[in-house]
Amino acid sequence: MTRPLPAPADIEAALAAAWKVGKARCADGKVAAYIPELARVDPSLFGLAIHTVDGQSYSHGDAQHPFTLQSASKVFSLSAVVAASGEKVFDHMSVEPSGDAFFSIVKLEEEKGQPRNPYINAGAILTSSHLQGATADAKIDRFRTFLGQSSGLGAGAFPVNEDVFRSEADTGHRNRALAEIMRHHGTIPDVEVAVETYFRQCATSCTAESLARLSLYLVNNGRDPLTGKRVLAPASNHGIVALMATSGMYDEVGSHAIEVGLPSKSSVSGAVLAIAPGRMAIAGFGPALGQKGNSIGAMKALGVLAARLELSVYR
Amino acid sequence: MTRPLPAPADIEAALAAAWKVGKARCADGKVAAYIPELARVDPSLFGLAIHTVDGQSYSHGDAQHPFTLQSASKVFSLSAVVAASGEKVFDHMSVEPSGDAFFSIVKLEEEKGQPRNPYINAGAILTSSHLQGATADAKIDRFRTFLGQSSGLGAGAFPVNEDVFRSEADTGHRNRALAEIMRHHGTIPDVEVAVETYFRQCATSCTAESLARLSLYLVNNGRDPLTGKRVLAPASNHGIVALMATSGMYDEVGSHAIEVGLPSKSSVSGAVLAIAPGRMAIAGFGPALGQKGNSIGAMKALGVLAARLELSVYR
Amino acid sequence: MTRPLPAPADIEAALAAAWKVGKARCADGKVAAYIPELARVDPSLFGLAIHTVDGQSYSHGDAQHPFTLQSASKVFSLSAVVAASGEKVFDHMSVEPSGDAFFSIVKLEEEKGQPRNPYINAGAILTSSHLQGATADAKIDRFRTFLGQSSGLGAGAFPVNEDVFRSEADTGHRNRALAEIMRHHGTIPDVEVAVETYFRQCATSCTAESLARLSLYLVNNGRDPLTGKRVLAPASNHGIVALMATSGMYDEVGSHAIEVGLPSKSSVSGAVLAIAPGRMAIAGFGPALGQKGNSIGAMKALGVLAARLELSVYR
Amino acid sequence: MTRPLPAPADIEAALAAAWKVGKARCADGKVAAYIPELARVDPSLFGLAIHTVDGQSYSHGDAQHPFTLQSASKVFSLSAVVAASGEKVFDHMSVEPSGDAFFSIVKLEEEKGQPRNPYINAGAILTSSHLQGATADAKIDRFRTFLGQSSGLGAGAFPVNEDVFRSEADTGHRNRALAEIMRHHGTIPDVEVAVETYFRQCATSCTAESLARLSLYLVNNGRDPLTGKRVLAPASNHGIVALMATSGMYDEVGSHAIEVGLPSKSSVSGAVLAIAPGRMAIAGFGPALGQKGNSIGAMKALGVLAARLELSVYR
Repeated sequence: MTRPLPAPADIEAALAAAWKVGKARCADGKVAAYIPELARVDPSLFGLAIHTVDGQSYSHGDAQHPFTLQSASKVFSLSAVVAASGEKVFDHMSVEPSGDAFFSIVKLEEEKGQPRNPYINAGAILTSSHLQGATADAKIDRFRTFLGQSSGLGAGAFPVNEDVFRSEADTGHRNRALAEIMRHHGTIPDVEVAVETYFRQCATSCTAESLARLSLYLVNNGRDPLTGKRVLAPASNHGIVALMATSGMYDEVGSHAIEVGLPSKSSVSGAVLAIAPGRMAIAGFGPALGQKGNSIGAMKALGVLAARLELSVYR
Repeated sequence: MTRPLPAPADIEAALAAAWKVGKARCADGKVAAYIPELARVDPSLFGLAIHTVDGQSYSHGDAQHPFTLQSASKVFSLSAVVAASGEKVFDHMSVEPSGDAFFSIVKLEEEKGQPRNPYINAGAILTSSHLQGATADAKIDRFRTFLGQSSGLGAGAFPVNEDVFRSEADTGHRNRALAEIMRHHGTIPDVEVAVETYFRQCATSCTAESLARLSLYLVNNGRDPLTGKRVLAPASNHGIVALMATSGMYDEVGSHAIEVGLPSKSSVSGAVLAIAPGRMAIAGFGPALGQKGNSIGAMKALGVLAARLELSVYR
Repeated sequence: MTRPLPAPADIEAALAAAWKVGKARCADGKVAAYIPELARVDPSLFGLAIHTVDGQSYSHGDAQHPFTLQSASKVFSLSAVVAASGEKVFDHMSVEPSGDAFFSIVKLEEEKGQPRNPYINAGAILTSSHLQGATADAKIDRFRTFLGQSSGLGAGAFPVNEDVFRSEADTGHRNRALAEIMRHHGTIPDVEVAVETYFRQCATSCTAESLARLSLYLVNNGRDPLTGKRVLAPASNHGIVALMATSGMYDEVGSHAIEVGLPSKSSVSGAVLAIAPGRMAIAGFGPALGQKGNSIGAMKALGVLAARLELSVYR
Repeated sequence: MTRPLPAPADIEAALAAAWKVGKARCADGKVAAYIPELARVDPSLFGLAIHTVDGQSYSHGDAQHPFTLQSASKVFSLSAVVAASGEKVFDHMSVEPSGDAFFSIVKLEEEKGQPRNPYINAGAILTSSHLQGATADAKIDRFRTFLGQSSGLGAGAFPVNEDVFRSEADTGHRNRALAEIMRHHGTIPDVEVAVETYFRQCATSCTAESLARLSLYLVNNGRDPLTGKRVLAPASNHGIVALMATSGMYDEVGSHAIEVGLPSKSSVSGAVLAIAPGRMAIAGFGPALGQKGNSIGAMKALGVLAARLELSVYR
């Protein structure tokens, strides 16, 4: 359902106000330290971008600054896999919140290698192994082609940052452990292919601008409202967005629902992507993270935007 | 935001279709066995009721059959506590999904007696102990007064079923264990008062009809659209509804979000209450439960209703 | 098998040396704070007592100072129950180390109310509920009669400290939670009887002297070597001592085996009882506890004694 | 302490009786299925071997049949590491029972990559990575040289079974996961070196005969009583044997202590090695395993031997 959009001036004003509040919070956060390449990022960067279903776009601050998708990629690899092969990826994956940290291996062992949902690391690694192609290179080509086509920006807008990739591959022991557990239980066929694909997918670059643009199909029942291209069947799109609402923000999914009220996906690189169904996609980027690993500025800015523009889906 | 309502004839037709589909599923479920009084209920009972923000009401099947609120009461005890005392109840309670079974004591111990959220049993017992009044009787009076006033139906519409209460009190050892753990950590002051209040609150009766009516304030930003009475501040109401979306359906919150897409709260007595913000409250009642303890018919019927009337908040 | 005993002068010298080393360590520990009555004990108290199978006794320091048995009682309630009813108590209890803290409720829930072993709290509460008698009073009479007869000292040597009992009963919420979980799963019949018995049993007083004397049957295949009274069948006695070796020292059972090498049982009141099969029972008492909740002085002193007298069963 | 040995005729008779009882139990067990190479072993094989500190040896049944050490290797890799480098291996490893399955990753994650003890898989992999040498080949040479020298049989008596090694390397995903978790936390430096060493060490062959002979230093305070060679300092030997008593039999360490009463180490290939300090080493071999993964025949036979020869350390 397309819903009435706020007036452009109201969006502009709300965006400026939200940016100001979010920017001020960045000083309270810290950049991710566990991947060396990410630890070098400037914690004061902060940008916001909005794309609406009727083709308007707005941005403020560092909205053209490149960053790697990291966990925000999980939404799009899942979209690519479901677009190509339907719900088969859920044969060995549940759709429920995990209640544990994003890297947790505990439930994965207890539940026989079946990840709790596609937005925790284990589930995303399983999803990556379902991308079409026999090798990690082929799978990543497929992933980037999907990004390029779904956004109308071309795959070139989403290059892999090789330094970040190597940094993740060198330090991603916990993700390898998850993959080994799944390999043990037979839910993925090949550890190396799965984790290399996953690390490259996480190291794929975008900007707040391109991320919001890319996400318009999620806002619009699976069809890009600007190109008219159908990316996902409506029911599949609904499920992918619903999962953002219940499992998209790690261990802050509840407080984010209360404070913002939009299905969202965060990343350790500082992105928070929020979907206002029928209206707009919003991407925040602020690498200063709070204690739970989510961008402290982006979460706060989304709260301001959602309140001022009455965007929450729960009101 | 008040959203456009479907035409009455469309609601009637969708309700009839949903009832038929849900009723057919009841044969696949089982009534709750762990409380003797509940085990005697007829598993083929099935009713649906809708109340809209503009004052229309619809029902089908056993919508006037009395049942006990059980876990659906958690939404209203939380409302009553927040209405009276604000967010203080969250000083020792988180708002995140638990990822575990509703009765789980594991995270409660790990997290020093702080329940994960108000819709798991531990959180609801903590909430009950915050109801105004020094004794369980006083607290339950307060709770039932809240139900009566918020619904405009009077407290008499929500009597305590004493047989169910005694059955729960006699068998509620796991809930007592949760209360003892919280007492140990000082998050509740008195085990007996807390669990007696909780058992009586769970044993409070309603019908699908009265439950949907009672829930209109949740649909309407905290104000009853029919009486005009403000029950909760808008921000508090938003939080209580958002928590239904992330923690209202036990270990099926993710699949319910995918299949239905409405903030909901289920109960072991077979109720599922769903909130379509700005539009309507829907109450399903079917005591035949699926494997995860939620009404198998009510969940299915809500899926049909949400699809036909385009109610999902995620599309 | 009766094994050769060290010469009395060697025992005296080793005991004096061990006492000196242990006493010096007491300054590094802290008395238990979680039971108010225990928190008042003087942390510099330190005593050691030895009783040998040939009837000699030795002591040093505060060996006549009264303290409550606390968890050391678990060995004797288990002995009393097995003496009266055989191995039936193990129908709903395992015999394996838990790997968790002594109060842990996690495994108890996972394992359907079956305690991991009789020396964690849950297992001891289950054991207490198997003591003969319909009421807590009757069960405690039975327990104290067992202590009096097995030690040859009479039940009067083991009075219940009513202040400690009330202190434990008032604060024992975690133990009540364990009992409620077991009641839920049907492994104990009555929560109140079980926990009152358990709290009274824990609050039963002894001294290092009387505890070592009481334990001689454990040293001697179940028969008191001084009175000739058979307390337990040899196989039952073997099991009770073996369980001390694998589960008697909470989360220090491994390091205690390495440092001392004697089946032992510790208590939060500062006792460590050690069994040198065929030779002697040793009781240390020092209420200053280390980080894992075991008497820091008594563990150290036992290490010195075991080394000097070559008592370890693993060498 | 050298303890009096039973008469040779008594040992012979007890061994024959124990073999008969154990052999009869083999029909109730199953060979390990998770490593393909092990699944092919004849489940009716059953052998027992004894070596005494005074140089006698006894055997019955399939005591010369080769099998791979598997988890029995953990005792000897730990011995080799401690002999070469002292207790440094315990800088990042505890010595307590885990209370979980041998392959469990849960506590390893909770405890920041520090294994609970050297006899669960994680601890053994950590230990393997401490074997001297930069490569897996060098480390395994060191390990086999240790076996050869400590037993007086030469490294040739302990060849690596390459088929079993490859089978383990191909299927050892759970062990790789453990190693990745430890690598993440920095407790091992290299996953591939650690797991290849571990898999080769597990695939090292012996017989019940050679295993009992090899273990004589454990019986004799760290010095081989036949060659006179000191393998370990007495205190180190004591710790390694004590850990067998508290953590050597997976999730049957308690029941094995009760039924047998000897520090023991089992393996999935069907070995159970038992140490009677000061007297004898006993090796049972029967690949038919019980539900907890220990040789059902060997455990039973050890119970008979311990009872008849009064070997238990707890009596």
